[in-house]
Amino acid sequence: MAGFVTHLESAIDGTKLAADEVQTLHEGRPLWVRYDLDAIRERVNPETIARRSPTMWRYEELLPCSAAEAVTLGEGMTPLLSATRLGSAIGLNDLWIKDESQLPTGSFKSRGLGMAVSMAARFGLRRLAIPTAGNAGGALAAYGARVGAEVFVFMPEDTPVINQIECHLAGAKTFLVNGLINDCGRIVREGVESAGWFDFSTLKEPYRIEGKKTMGLELAEQFGWELPDAILYPTGGGTGLIGMWKAFAELQELGWLRTKKKPRMFAVQSDGCAPIVRAFENGERFAEVFEGAATCAAGIRVPVAVGDFMILDAVRESGGAAVSVCEDDIMGAVSRAISLEGISVCPEAAACVLAAKKLVVDGRLKADERTVIFNTGAVQKYPECAAVDLPRVDVGTAVDYAALTGIA
Amino acid sequence: MAGFVTHLESAIDGTKLAADEVQTLHEGRPLWVRYDLDAIRERVNPETIARRSPTMWRYEELLPCSAAEAVTLGEGMTPLLSATRLGSAIGLNDLWIKDESQLPTGSFKSRGLGMAVSMAARFGLRRLAIPTAGNAGGALAAYGARVGAEVFVFMPEDTPVINQIECHLAGAKTFLVNGLINDCGRIVREGVESAGWFDFSTLKEPYRIEGKKTMGLELAEQFGWELPDAILYPTGGGTGLIGMWKAFAELQELGWLRTKKKPRMFAVQSDGCAPIVRAFENGERFAEVFEGAATCAAGIRVPVAVGDFMILDAVRESGGAAVSVCEDDIMGAVSRAISLEGISVCPEAAACVLAAKKLVVDGRLKADERTVIFNTGAVQKYPECAAVDLPRVDVGTAVDYAALTGIA
Repeated sequence: MAGFVTHLESAIDGTKLAADEVQTLHEGRPLWVRYDLDAIRERVNPETIARRSPTMWRYEELLPCSAAEAVTLGEGMTPLLSATRLGSAIGLNDLWIKDESQLPTGSFKSRGLGMAVSMAARFGLRRLAIPTAGNAGGALAAYGARVGAEVFVFMPEDTPVINQIECHLAGAKTFLVNGLINDCGRIVREGVESAGWFDFSTLKEPYRIEGKKTMGLELAEQFGWELPDAILYPTGGGTGLIGMWKAFAELQELGWLRTKKKPRMFAVQSDGCAPIVRAFENGERFAEVFEGAATCAAGIRVPVAVGDFMILDAVRESGGAAVSVCEDDIMGAVSRAISLEGISVCPEAAACVLAAKKLVVDGRLKADERTVIFNTGAVQKYPECAAVDLPRVDVGTAVDYAALTGIA
Repeated sequence: MAGFVTHLESAIDGTKLAADEVQTLHEGRPLWVRYDLDAIRERVNPETIARRSPTMWRYEELLPCSAAEAVTLGEGMTPLLSATRLGSAIGLNDLWIKDESQLPTGSFKSRGLGMAVSMAARFGLRRLAIPTAGNAGGALAAYGARVGAEVFVFMPEDTPVINQIECHLAGAKTFLVNGLINDCGRIVREGVESAGWFDFSTLKEPYRIEGKKTMGLELAEQFGWELPDAILYPTGGGTGLIGMWKAFAELQELGWLRTKKKPRMFAVQSDGCAPIVRAFENGERFAEVFEGAATCAAGIRVPVAVGDFMILDAVRESGGAAVSVCEDDIMGAVSRAISLEGISVCPEAAACVLAAKKLVVDGRLKADERTVIFNTGAVQKYPECAAVDLPRVDVGTAVDYAALTGIA
């Protein structure tokens, strides 16, 4: 497939850049991938797509890379699950969870990194480096292994151990850094010249956003091409939120949406690391570094985001908000959500549950509004946050079932 | 949907039992679910199925429970991934991995437990108990939470910590036992009367096998309704192997298969716990308890299986074999497989990689035979087996990129 990409476009000043060569940032800020949507409208429609394999590559005309060319581990189409009992508990009658834990390496990062690695392969980039809060490193290691590229991962030393293990097992050269993700980012940046790396930092290459965009495309298709009223998205680097907002605009221009409604986008952070929320509340377009960032939700422990203005633009255009929740409440919300729905809700998604409840109480989210929370990864990847000390049973002793189970 | 189940049938003596009431074992041995395949052939065909949602419930006519009635977390249809580089490394030109790690709770147990919980819900069973080597407990806890049932899990005290956590977070009453899964099984069995539990042990209720059967149905559909030459399946309780073999027979009777070829089924175990292999090699139909069972592949640490004869019958009928591999080689095979393919290969699946290599060397598997390995869970759930001590980088010091990365 030749593809429908026309060019890349600077998100900060609109400068057009060629799509057939390797691009990174422009004026220190990210790029959009632009398509010939008229030509796509001629070529394909929702009925065609419905007959394709259930992966994110079913939307290939809206992507920079075809299904045939993709470096793939079978990513997408993740379940969109009703969350009736959880919704009821927080005052929402039409709550859904898009379960991204059911992706390769157990997180939504597969979409962006699968796409970015596919494009890196096209451009012959063979030495890939990434700073990571955890799951992105695991995903890059996996896709890098899939295509036989060399991968270098830099992560904070207190990154969840599962992320350390998955990078190592996939053969990535993995390093622990006594700092945060932005410190890791600096190390990668400085190594681009001396080590010949291609920098896979969030939004520093233009294609990860196109992979994340598929969350929005799937959501639209799964709801019958009618968008929900509100989306709550845990926001670190924000690629997914930016990508979904872009997806909705493209779908609208294609004329595939059954109604004009677009969701209000809510960027959710922990009060332990809330740079976007602070900028939103201060009416700013750019966010300052959040000092002393600390949250059990590793994926949103991102004190500074290069795409801050893209997140804030999307949130404001949509009529949504950036919302922070109390760090201390997050793990309680994890177990509450899982025990009510059985979904492997991670701390980042649990933050969204808390935010949803807050918005309902505030009156900013109405009980009957169709609301979607993104579960960005599997809780199984966070053993540090959920240590348990289970009761023991001795095989040599008669079991007192009543005492054991609390059943009279 | 009224459904096409006609009756249940004892696997040991063929006795017919009613499907519209709660059944467990007959003469201490498992039951088959039987269908009116002629009626199914009239009602549905592969073209109809191809247009349905990509979950295991797309095969609802061949299942005891309809998609509408299902207690679901979106399980199936998992990717069938080519493993070209791994295949090349072990001498196979047409190797595939069916990646069951991309299921709810990160393991293939979702299929069986999703089905069994759906049927338990139909029968009004609300107090579910299970002995588990790990992943089955996690899956039951999740589906139990999904439907609001009370779940009791008994697991060996050295069960992977992720399994302990996922059960606990889902609200299951979870207990550590200083023994193996058969000790846990005894505790559950004895509690059936005193605690009013329904016993969810492997094959003790008839529907888990029907959920696992969908692995075979998906495999057939994904290969265009032509079965592969060989399947390697890590075998603990063996439900999946038994279920797939049943699926293939049903598909053949339905006339949906394009050729008569059925795969040779290889049951793979570690030499640290190989009761089925020992019985196979001794020409026996029933397996003795394997004393001192020990393997890092928690899912196949099953010293005795109630469905032993069903596994051995399927393996023999198919012209396959039960094969053991060296326990000490398993973790090396994990990292080798992941670094070559990027797939989250768990220790159980790595045992299959070793077995495949052994069969190639033996001449029992030919280089051009289409071979499928089941990756039954995500390696991310096994941190105990893969502890790493990663190199560190100090943010305060200039980074020596050449030394760090081994790049001159």
